Amino acid sequence: MHRLPYLLLNTDICKGNIDRMAKKAILHKLTLRPHFKTHQSAQIAEWFRELGISSCTVSSVKMTEYFANAGWSDITIAFPVSPFEVDAINALAKRISLNVIFSSASNLLKSVNLLTENIGVFIEVDVGHNRSGVDHENTREIALMVNQLEENPKLMFRGFITHAGHTYKAKSTDEVLKIHRESISILIKLKAFWKESHPDIIVSYGDTPSCSIADDFWGIDEIRPGNFVFYDVMQSQIGSCTTNDIAVAVICPVVDINHDRQEAVILCGAVHLSKDSINLPNGETTYGMVCAFDGNTWGKPLEELYVKSLSQEHGIIAYSGNFPFKVGDLLAILPIHSCLTVDLMGEVKLTDGSTIQTMRQHSY
Amino acid sequence: MHRLPYLLLNTDICKGNIDRMAKKAILHKLTLRPHFKTHQSAQIAEWFRELGISSCTVSSVKMTEYFANAGWSDITIAFPVSPFEVDAINALAKRISLNVIFSSASNLLKSVNLLTENIGVFIEVDVGHNRSGVDHENTREIALMVNQLEENPKLMFRGFITHAGHTYKAKSTDEVLKIHRESISILIKLKAFWKESHPDIIVSYGDTPSCSIADDFWGIDEIRPGNFVFYDVMQSQIGSCTTNDIAVAVICPVVDINHDRQEAVILCGAVHLSKDSINLPNGETTYGMVCAFDGNTWGKPLEELYVKSLSQEHGIIAYSGNFPFKVGDLLAILPIHSCLTVDLMGEVKLTDGSTIQTMRQHSY
Repeated sequence: MHRLPYLLLNTDICKGNIDRMAKKAILHKLTLRPHFKTHQSAQIAEWFRELGISSCTVSSVKMTEYFANAGWSDITIAFPVSPFEVDAINALAKRISLNVIFSSASNLLKSVNLLTENIGVFIEVDVGHNRSGVDHENTREIALMVNQLEENPKLMFRGFITHAGHTYKAKSTDEVLKIHRESISILIKLKAFWKESHPDIIVSYGDTPSCSIADDFWGIDEIRPGNFVFYDVMQSQIGSCTTNDIAVAVICPVVDINHDRQEAVILCGAVHLSKDSINLPNGETTYGMVCAFDGNTWGKPLEELYVKSLSQEHGIIAYSGNFPFKVGDLLAILPIHSCLTVDLMGEVKLTDGSTIQTMRQHSY
Repeated sequence: MHRLPYLLLNTDICKGNIDRMAKKAILHKLTLRPHFKTHQSAQIAEWFRELGISSCTVSSVKMTEYFANAGWSDITIAFPVSPFEVDAINALAKRISLNVIFSSASNLLKSVNLLTENIGVFIEVDVGHNRSGVDHENTREIALMVNQLEENPKLMFRGFITHAGHTYKAKSTDEVLKIHRESISILIKLKAFWKESHPDIIVSYGDTPSCSIADDFWGIDEIRPGNFVFYDVMQSQIGSCTTNDIAVAVICPVVDINHDRQEAVILCGAVHLSKDSINLPNGETTYGMVCAFDGNTWGKPLEELYVKSLSQEHGIIAYSGNFPFKVGDLLAILPIHSCLTVDLMGEVKLTDGSTIQTMRQHSY
């Protein structure tokens, strides 16, 4: 018996998710450069390698070092370069084929002359997410960035990269597809404009909702979805997946039941699930979906239960009618946002009883 | 230079917070059994020991093992016993003086006969927080629990414990004091009723808002605040502290600035700060308070800036007027909820350059 709570991974679902995305990439002639920030695990990364995937995306320099040490030799750091990281980036670029991104002229100017190794550079463009990246219509700023890049002979301008993360706020697959069409249209125009002077540039795209839902990627060279490896409740709500595709659940015990308040206490809190939540149709907030657990696999989500609140280690499940479990039963909680849950849990159990470590359990 | 972002602890503020609470406990003749779930660090625990504090509270069995290994020999696990934990609890009770809590008759009945070592037991009562614990007015259920406890000769009924966590939702110090008065009045009545048959019982109380704000603890034996060691923005909003008492901040760089949107990107996301947030008077949500940082200490929170959103590693600061920093500057972000931030960060840097490890960095 594992210590409770633990994070259980359904390997079949996970490998199915990877396989579908890999096949979709082949079908659409896209390079799949999966984002590894969701699983943060060298062992799960191997499941990608088994399908012939040899490049990946990460969100930090620390994560780059972790995956470089695990044998990944072609990595894009999809977070704008910070001047404090240039030494570590230069050191990594001596070992592996490394791409970095700059998100504006001022972001670029701060670090561009400090990069001393052969490094690929993407210009991050904002296609509507409004988080980071240069406005795609700001040709003047993009031109300034390209010119500055060319003054450093060690840097190779690789093209344009974007994260259309506003799909995460979409309320329907139609809305995701609308964002998707707008985003790829922007990237296609950018590439057409800049490839005359830089014929080898590519455009790199791909959040999990777009890559899961869309079927037209014409003009795109590379996709970088990450969350799809596990999916989660948020993705099922957006329509990127069904709840059958969610590959991870936190296994936890029912500790107490309060029949008067129609609430149960579980040993599963904010340090396990994270505080990410979604709004339910009834106006309530939930921090996870509740499923029965038979010791090996979890059942369908029980729609009449929801995780009403979380404190550090307590979770409160609200129910109506009868609570279908008793004190000491195990439940499986499907996370709202699997990336944050996996980051918190630090290790993943498989149904065969083995344990997969993530970066969290290593000294990075 | 440390890797960014990192968690910086102002030792003076932290030791001042500990010292004030220790003195308050002495003044009111209370046992201070601090909750160590906030810092989760054997090294910070030593600062309590230096003031003569020899007992502590924890929130998990894993945390009990960690602090038992660090030499703490009198520990209360302030989370209702789960039947899956009895072996570990029995093993711990052979090594240290251990107290556990039961939160209802059904919670108790599931495990009470599985405890085979000398263990102290508190009955958790609910005084209005409505998270866990038996209704304090349910004398029949409490009597059932006491009777069941007495059937196991290894268990010693130690008294009643509560967490008046509804103070965390209070909007003013007056509201905290109202909850405090109600809560201690309930505990005093319970003790008076049960001490005739059990003269050695105590009542154990104490969330950070009550223990920080109140000045009347008559009738209470023990307090268990935890968060006060670092405090945070939420506690300053409640009135438990001022922002001058907040002892930890995440140090992170400004990565980019978008003058059009009046937003800055920082390398500080949900995997650093946690997704805990508070509402600002202007209706916006913030995930932290922003301060200047000179490389050693942080300044006053800048009220005109707020952390508008967090994704996994990105934080977005919104500002009005001019942004008083440039790309590459370091900022200090005061966390909304320090317990979750410290849990995520896993280690704490001191201004002398040394590093304090938490449980996260150990193989527990």
